[in-house]
Amino acid sequence: MSTITLTTDFGTRDYYVAAMKGEILSIDPGAKIIDISHHITPQNILEGAITLAHAAKHFPLRTVHVGVVDPGVGGSRRAIVIHTERFYYVGPDNGLFSLALKDENLLGIFEIRDEKYMADRVSDTFHGRDIFAPVAAHIARGANPAIMGPPINDPVELVMPEVEKRDGTLIGEVIHIDSFGNLITNISRDDIRSLGQDASLRVLILENVIDRISTIYEGEGQKFIALFGSFSLLEIAVPNKNASKELKAETGITVKVERL
Amino acid sequence: MSTITLTTDFGTRDYYVAAMKGEILSIDPGAKIIDISHHITPQNILEGAITLAHAAKHFPLRTVHVGVVDPGVGGSRRAIVIHTERFYYVGPDNGLFSLALKDENLLGIFEIRDEKYMADRVSDTFHGRDIFAPVAAHIARGANPAIMGPPINDPVELVMPEVEKRDGTLIGEVIHIDSFGNLITNISRDDIRSLGQDASLRVLILENVIDRISTIYEGEGQKFIALFGSFSLLEIAVPNKNASKELKAETGITVKVERL
Amino acid sequence: MSTITLTTDFGTRDYYVAAMKGEILSIDPGAKIIDISHHITPQNILEGAITLAHAAKHFPLRTVHVGVVDPGVGGSRRAIVIHTERFYYVGPDNGLFSLALKDENLLGIFEIRDEKYMADRVSDTFHGRDIFAPVAAHIARGANPAIMGPPINDPVELVMPEVEKRDGTLIGEVIHIDSFGNLITNISRDDIRSLGQDASLRVLILENVIDRISTIYEGEGQKFIALFGSFSLLEIAVPNKNASKELKAETGITVKVERL
Repeated sequence: MSTITLTTDFGTRDYYVAAMKGEILSIDPGAKIIDISHHITPQNILEGAITLAHAAKHFPLRTVHVGVVDPGVGGSRRAIVIHTERFYYVGPDNGLFSLALKDENLLGIFEIRDEKYMADRVSDTFHGRDIFAPVAAHIARGANPAIMGPPINDPVELVMPEVEKRDGTLIGEVIHIDSFGNLITNISRDDIRSLGQDASLRVLILENVIDRISTIYEGEGQKFIALFGSFSLLEIAVPNKNASKELKAETGITVKVERL
Repeated sequence: MSTITLTTDFGTRDYYVAAMKGEILSIDPGAKIIDISHHITPQNILEGAITLAHAAKHFPLRTVHVGVVDPGVGGSRRAIVIHTERFYYVGPDNGLFSLALKDENLLGIFEIRDEKYMADRVSDTFHGRDIFAPVAAHIARGANPAIMGPPINDPVELVMPEVEKRDGTLIGEVIHIDSFGNLITNISRDDIRSLGQDASLRVLILENVIDRISTIYEGEGQKFIALFGSFSLLEIAVPNKNASKELKAETGITVKVERL
Repeated sequence: MSTITLTTDFGTRDYYVAAMKGEILSIDPGAKIIDISHHITPQNILEGAITLAHAAKHFPLRTVHVGVVDPGVGGSRRAIVIHTERFYYVGPDNGLFSLALKDENLLGIFEIRDEKYMADRVSDTFHGRDIFAPVAAHIARGANPAIMGPPINDPVELVMPEVEKRDGTLIGEVIHIDSFGNLITNISRDDIRSLGQDASLRVLILENVIDRISTIYEGEGQKFIALFGSFSLLEIAVPNKNASKELKAETGITVKVERL
C-alpha cells in the first residue's frame, strides 16, 4: 500500500487540494493520501520547507512527498522528482525540499518533462493538480522517476537565515510561529553547544531576558521560557499561553543567546 | 475500493464531520473518505455548488459525492441521490449539485425514503450523519440508488447569477473568493469569445482598469491582473498578494469586460 | 482493516498531526486514520472531552481513539490506554476520556510504561508523536493493552460544570460554541424532564427570553431559538445566523430554564 503526503499553501476552503487527491486516486485508487499541511503561508517557501522536513521523516519508507508552494508556477522554474534512499519528493524546483534533503542520501534528481505522466491538459496556474499529483501517483504505483525526464544536478537551494556568532553571543531569529504561538528560532543544539559545554546562558528576545533553557513547557516563576521543542530548535514559549501574542512577535525578530 | 467525498459547511472544529465518517465506516469499513471542503460559508449553497462542481470531476468513476449545505434540514426539502454516468451524488434537494450536473449524463434522481438505509434514529438537525452518510456508504457498497425511494424529475435548480451583455460589454460579478484572495467571477471563456475573436479588451473592477487578460499570475507592470485561473472562469488577482484585501472586495461586486 | 481516530489541540498548520500519522503508518501501514478534530481550544480538556465523546460512538467496533489535549506533557501525569467493550482510548490521564466512558462498559485501564511500544527517543514535549501514536498503532495491529503497563483504577475524572436546580428553575451554562456559533449548554433532556412532564417552559440567556423549545432550526417569529441539537444538549441558536456573535456570548455564561 503506497502513501502519498501533501504539503501546500492552498488552504482547505477551496477545491484545490481535493482536485489533487482526485487525480491521484484516478491513477492509484489504493493510495493512502495524508495531509501534512495546507496552511503554509501563501508563497512562503521557507515555512513549507520547515514543515515538510519535520514531517517527512516520520513516514514509512518509499512514501512519496508532494510539496506545492509555488510562486513561480507557469513560469520557467522546473518541475522535479527527487529520489533518496528513503523517499520520493515531487514538486517545483525552488528549494522547498532543501531542508528535508539534509537528513537524506540522495540517489537522483530528475526534471519532469514527459507529458505521459501529466494530466491531458496542463494549465499554467495549477501544476499541483496537472503535474505533481499525477506524477506522484505514477511513482507510488512503481514508476521509476528516472523516466520522467533528464537528471539535474543544480537544484535550487533554499537560503536559510544563518545564526551569527559574535563575542560568545549567538544571534538568531524567529523563523516560524506554530499554532500554539510558540516562536521557533533557527538556533540549534549544536549552536548552543558551540558556546561551551555546561555554560550558563541567557536568552534575549525583545525586552525580555530568560535566564535558563528549560526542558518542558513549565516556567517555575518566569513568564517566558526557552526550550528545545518539537522542531529540535530553540523556541520561546509562555506556558499555557500564546507567546506570539504576549510578545507581539513575528517571524524575523532577533533572538540572542549569551554566555554569562 | 470505493471512494466517498464530503463537501459541507460544518467546519473542522466540531465533531460533525467525524460523526459522518464514523457512520460511513461502520457500514463500509473499506471506504476511502476524501474531504473536498468543510469550510463552505454556512448555508451558502452557491459556494458549495461551485466547490463541488470543480472538485467532483477529478475523482475516479463511481465515486460517491456527499454534499451537505443544508439550511432546510428538518423541514420539507427532500433528500436525494443523483445517479449519473460517472458518479453518485447524495444530499439535500436544494440545488447544491446543479453545477456538477452540467457536465454529466444523468441516469436518474431518487428521493431517499427507505428508512432501512438511514440511522436507527433520524434527528431533525443532522441529516448529514443520520441519512446522507449511511446512504452514501450503502451506495459505495453497491446498493442501487433506485431502491432508496421514488424517482423524481423536478429537482431544485440553483439560480446562478447570469452574465449580462449590453452594447459589447459583459457585466458579471464576483461569485467566489478563494483562499489566496483571488476574485472568481461568473464570466466564462465563452462569454469573452462572444465579444468577438481577437478583440482588444479591458476589465473593470471598482475604480480599476486592467488592460489585458493574462495567462499566468504575473503582472508585468500592472498591479491587478485578470486571467482564467483554476476555476476556468475570469478571475482578478494581484501577483503574490491577496486581491480581496487589496480591493476590499466581497462576493457580489460587479466586474465588467469592455471591448475597446 | 483497523481505524484510528485523532483528537488534538495541535491545529492543522504545523507538522505535528502529520508526524503522528507517519509514526502510525510506519507501524501499521494499513491503518485508516480519521481526524475527529485538531482545533480543540489549546489545553481545553473539557472541550476535547465533549468533542471526543460525541464523535467516538459513531465509529466501528474496535476503533482506537487517540486524544491529545495535554497541558501536563513531560510532567508527572500518566499515559494510559483504556479498553472498553467497544473501543480503545489512548492518551494522557487527565480526564479527556471521561465523557466518552459514560456510555461504555469498561474492561480495563492500563498505564503505558513499556518503552518497547514507544518511539526510540521519547521527547518531553511531544508524547502524541512519541508515545500515543505508536501505542495506538500497536493496539490497532492487535497488541493487548494489558501488556503496555500496570492496570490502574484511579483515572483522573473530568469535573463537568453541573446544572443547578433551584425553585423549579434550572441554572446551567454554555459549555461549547460550535462552528455555526450555536451555544451548547450543559442542560440535558433529563434535566428538562425533571421540571415536570409537559411543563410550559422559558429559556433565559443574558437579556433574552425564549418562550419555547423548538425541534428544528426555525424561529417562527422569534430571533433566538432553544432546541436539542446534534449534541443532545439544550442549545441556543439564531436561524441562519451566528448566535455567539449576535449575543456576544462566550462559554461559561449562564442559561436558565424556568417553569411558567
